[in-house]
Amino acid sequence: MSIDPGATLGLLRERKPLIHNITNYVVMNETANAILALGALPVMAHAKDEVREMVGLAGALVLNIGTLSADWIEAMLLAGAEANARGVPIVLDPVGAGATRYRTDTAKRILDVLDVAVLRGNAGEVATLVGVEAEVRGVESVGGGGDPTELARAAATALGVVASVTGPVDHVSDGVRDAAVANGHELLAAITGTGCMSTALTGCFLAGKDDPFEAAVEALVAFGVAGEDAAAEAKGPGSFHVELYDALAALDPDSLTGRGKVS
Amino acid sequence: MSIDPGATLGLLRERKPLIHNITNYVVMNETANAILALGALPVMAHAKDEVREMVGLAGALVLNIGTLSADWIEAMLLAGAEANARGVPIVLDPVGAGATRYRTDTAKRILDVLDVAVLRGNAGEVATLVGVEAEVRGVESVGGGGDPTELARAAATALGVVASVTGPVDHVSDGVRDAAVANGHELLAAITGTGCMSTALTGCFLAGKDDPFEAAVEALVAFGVAGEDAAAEAKGPGSFHVELYDALAALDPDSLTGRGKVS
Amino acid sequence: MSIDPGATLGLLRERKPLIHNITNYVVMNETANAILALGALPVMAHAKDEVREMVGLAGALVLNIGTLSADWIEAMLLAGAEANARGVPIVLDPVGAGATRYRTDTAKRILDVLDVAVLRGNAGEVATLVGVEAEVRGVESVGGGGDPTELARAAATALGVVASVTGPVDHVSDGVRDAAVANGHELLAAITGTGCMSTALTGCFLAGKDDPFEAAVEALVAFGVAGEDAAAEAKGPGSFHVELYDALAALDPDSLTGRGKVS
Repeated sequence: MSIDPGATLGLLRERKPLIHNITNYVVMNETANAILALGALPVMAHAKDEVREMVGLAGALVLNIGTLSADWIEAMLLAGAEANARGVPIVLDPVGAGATRYRTDTAKRILDVLDVAVLRGNAGEVATLVGVEAEVRGVESVGGGGDPTELARAAATALGVVASVTGPVDHVSDGVRDAAVANGHELLAAITGTGCMSTALTGCFLAGKDDPFEAAVEALVAFGVAGEDAAAEAKGPGSFHVELYDALAALDPDSLTGRGKVS
Repeated sequence: MSIDPGATLGLLRERKPLIHNITNYVVMNETANAILALGALPVMAHAKDEVREMVGLAGALVLNIGTLSADWIEAMLLAGAEANARGVPIVLDPVGAGATRYRTDTAKRILDVLDVAVLRGNAGEVATLVGVEAEVRGVESVGGGGDPTELARAAATALGVVASVTGPVDHVSDGVRDAAVANGHELLAAITGTGCMSTALTGCFLAGKDDPFEAAVEALVAFGVAGEDAAAEAKGPGSFHVELYDALAALDPDSLTGRGKVS
Repeated sequence: MSIDPGATLGLLRERKPLIHNITNYVVMNETANAILALGALPVMAHAKDEVREMVGLAGALVLNIGTLSADWIEAMLLAGAEANARGVPIVLDPVGAGATRYRTDTAKRILDVLDVAVLRGNAGEVATLVGVEAEVRGVESVGGGGDPTELARAAATALGVVASVTGPVDHVSDGVRDAAVANGHELLAAITGTGCMSTALTGCFLAGKDDPFEAAVEALVAFGVAGEDAAAEAKGPGSFHVELYDALAALDPDSLTGRGKVS
């Protein structure tokens, strides 16, 4: 295997896997539309009465701890246990870990109890989870975390996951392999939920490829390239947001891999 | 009476009925904006402490079971009983029925306990509710359900509702009368929540017209025509989504009826 | 001090204060994006386990009672008490007060228990809270409330807040000083959540300025000017919605104050 986001994208559009999301209220519509635009099928379901059954239909499970409450944590743990039992890969987005103890503790608990394939967060969130000093203001990383390559590698090793640390340049590591993805555009930081979208798209690529390190890298290439295309048409955060869905839908499996800036 | 969506639209814009929605988190903003763009007034309210009072102010009640949980089901049943007592028409969207037992059972329970005027779903969801084999992947109908005209008629008869089965061509039946609506555009399937929007607009037309069969058909004509207009301006799902609200607001009562493709 | 929205905007963009929102499901994404586009950092958090800690990081707390339920009221009161203890200013949006007793009572309870800096509502909602006859249809003010200058002044005096009553012309009063803001555009009434956005932006300006009367006026100038700029580019509610974020992000601190229509 190798890093070939175009090939995986082609496969996703053919198979249309269901991506089960237990995610926050702020971005539900946005991540559902990003998944659809890429070419997979989203479902949002959080009731304890149905999450196990729903995850049985899914190609990947996306857990996102923004706008957390007790019932949702329980649903995440139930769905996650079922996903683990069935071999459905899990991607976790520790939104706001480091901002409050509740979020930090919940992210740690999920990582402790479940077998998480990919942890996708910003530098502040991931640093918090490996005990490195960082500043998280609400849900934004505003400093610290140290060298991002080191951080991704340390997180992968300490937490037993593929760590996908996004920022101006993204850093992915499984503890052995490392990759930096330089695709993207600064306007991605100007709207809410783009981190959550990159997590959701990581779920899509996990549903299309067995190697979670490669899947995580490919998802960031695809999302970054879409961000570049959207920025070329946008004049501010509102129009960028709209163009982003058009750009995701217009991603071309034949040219996508060649546009990746992976090192 | 006859099928005259332009006349009903004119009436709605003049009277601005309140449409009370108990709906899913994913589409709350989108259905509220669709209702506003059409010309009615949306309200989202789900607290057991207020749903009965709110429905007393409303011209129609929209129940949508996406992102379900126990409290919301209770609120739907409370609001629905009050709506029935007051003669406020109910439209039900059985989002994801067929995907999990929880959703199937909840949709059946609502249909059993409440007097639902219109059931608006995709072929897979409606087929599930009348016991016909179908495949629902998350919230998408991906196959089965048999002949859609038959399905709509069977659902109307078995469930005692107007069945409004949407898809590339929409089929509406009250068990005696049947209509097919060929308006719309494939981009409507490229964004999340368009099914929910068609349900919400069905609520609007129910608030403007006593005959639920005609109201259901008229809503689908209006939404389909708006979809056609939006697609003419769009270059992908993001821009289509934006154009859809502009197109709903620009619907012209004088020409709308003539643009309907109803057979 | 004086009313100088441009200067405060410049300060906000430099300091990027965190704005903690406990708000309704319908507008979470929209208000978060409005706050980001203006230049501050939004966070949405409602869990009782974390709201006190989160408000400790914030420059202002936004309480919005749309889509209310019991748990959220408790979270609002917890967060609000902590905000008061720490001197973090609170802005309250009494969405739908007057439509149901539950909303009216909750808004009154919050005003009673907490020290609210600014109450931002439409005429019907604010009139309800000071006992003046008004009609609220769902979440829309459709009549009554009397003279809006008088209403704002009466609310400020009776409730011990800065009253910010928005409409075609906005009226702000602290009981001694009065201001009318004539910025804005009628398309602001064509999409859902613009009232909630004006509340969220009031939170931003409260985080940038100690005088809540001036902060409330400045927020309405900024939002109104953005609405004017967005309307110049829009052809309907959908495109207006998109342009609104672009316009907020493009607000120019150097020219903003001069564009205010404050009397």
